[in-house]
Amino acid sequence: MPRSKGRIVVNNIDPLKNIRVVLTRPSHPGNIGAAARALKTMGLSTLYLVNPRTFPHADADARASGALDVLRHARVCDSLAAALGGCVLAVATSSRRRDLRHEMMTAREAARVALAQAASHPVAIVFGNETSGLNGDEARLCQLWADIPANPEYASLNLAGAVQVFAYELRMAQPDSTWRQQQEFEPASLEQVEQLYRHFEKTMTQIGFLDPANPKRLLPRLRRLLARARLEAEEINILRGFLKAVDKLARKAR
Amino acid sequence: MPRSKGRIVVNNIDPLKNIRVVLTRPSHPGNIGAAARALKTMGLSTLYLVNPRTFPHADADARASGALDVLRHARVCDSLAAALGGCVLAVATSSRRRDLRHEMMTAREAARVALAQAASHPVAIVFGNETSGLNGDEARLCQLWADIPANPEYASLNLAGAVQVFAYELRMAQPDSTWRQQQEFEPASLEQVEQLYRHFEKTMTQIGFLDPANPKRLLPRLRRLLARARLEAEEINILRGFLKAVDKLARKAR
Repeated sequence: MPRSKGRIVVNNIDPLKNIRVVLTRPSHPGNIGAAARALKTMGLSTLYLVNPRTFPHADADARASGALDVLRHARVCDSLAAALGGCVLAVATSSRRRDLRHEMMTAREAARVALAQAASHPVAIVFGNETSGLNGDEARLCQLWADIPANPEYASLNLAGAVQVFAYELRMAQPDSTWRQQQEFEPASLEQVEQLYRHFEKTMTQIGFLDPANPKRLLPRLRRLLARARLEAEEINILRGFLKAVDKLARKAR
Repeated sequence: MPRSKGRIVVNNIDPLKNIRVVLTRPSHPGNIGAAARALKTMGLSTLYLVNPRTFPHADADARASGALDVLRHARVCDSLAAALGGCVLAVATSSRRRDLRHEMMTAREAARVALAQAASHPVAIVFGNETSGLNGDEARLCQLWADIPANPEYASLNLAGAVQVFAYELRMAQPDSTWRQQQEFEPASLEQVEQLYRHFEKTMTQIGFLDPANPKRLLPRLRRLLARARLEAEEINILRGFLKAVDKLARKAR
């Protein structure tokens, strides 16, 4: 990606090509195939699978129909973190509004945010296991939670149905793209945000602000804040520079 | 506006209950079950089947999951005309814009029209056979054609996927469908954010990270970051507590 002092040079990339759909621990190969088909119908093509129970499989091929190419190019990873490598935003999808630690949006709102980011950088849309959804460790790797408005008495969309709705909303979000103005600076990668979080944790412990034996809600609150802020790469540099100065001071005061 | 369990009730008629989803000549019983599930997740419940090849069937039951009730109440008809009995509007769905004799809309536009009609009268959303779509005789019974915008190179949505998208758009077309993010935490006041900004400025200067004679772009960047983060009151407390610990350290190191 071309850079100039943290400012983005926008290329003529099709943002849909920068959207990575990640299925974590899918149980049914048929759903993987149906998801591949749903992607292709909406102009998406990048599918990542984290520890699929059974893949490849004849059921996946059958349900993929004319989207066998998407299935053949699917990347299999052994962790969600690996599947998110290089992404600047990971959107967790859920039909249940249970995780209030993160910023929540509707699928429609999230599609606009994701597409805007995808104009310049890879973005992941993350789906959990059919039965159990995303676990806590997986959820922590995502910055934004998106919800498909559904019947409160039965909100259980089939996995492929949920992928279809998100892929559809991503396509629908395309025409009115006001993202060029918003996307002025280079966004931080997920790895950079994670490093900043670790640095905060270390420095806060070092100066006695955080007691590792009794951390209370400090770290989850910090993680939530950093997820919501959608930091830029240059801001990471500023904050880590500040933390380094504090670290130096702590050594001096010791 | 009367409320029930936090949801705003517009009036006593639920237009979604007046929406009838009609599958004409479906080939695969699995698709019938998946369609029933898609309906129920969006608060629809009325399914009509015109000459299904195989129904009932174990595959339909399996794919219906928690929507077996919708499947059990499905009405089987021997003609599309019979399935449309009592309706004031029949919307034909297609992913191909091949029939230019009819008024064409996107799924989103058609959902609004259908929902408005359904406030007082039954309305049908008609899906064709998986392979051949709707034939000429069936198409003539519909008043409006609706199209799911799709990849022109591969627009072939799975039948259940198309039903899911239409059902979703019908739900989204409801006036009360755009739920607002619940304000779980107290947002910070603008004064609190300003005080945090001033505190950062003071501490950064004190520890030598910020040179007031040569501040560069540090302060505007910090201000921009804080504006974007939409901080909560508790987060202000955490960050100011951290800065106070740094201030104390700076006094000690002096």
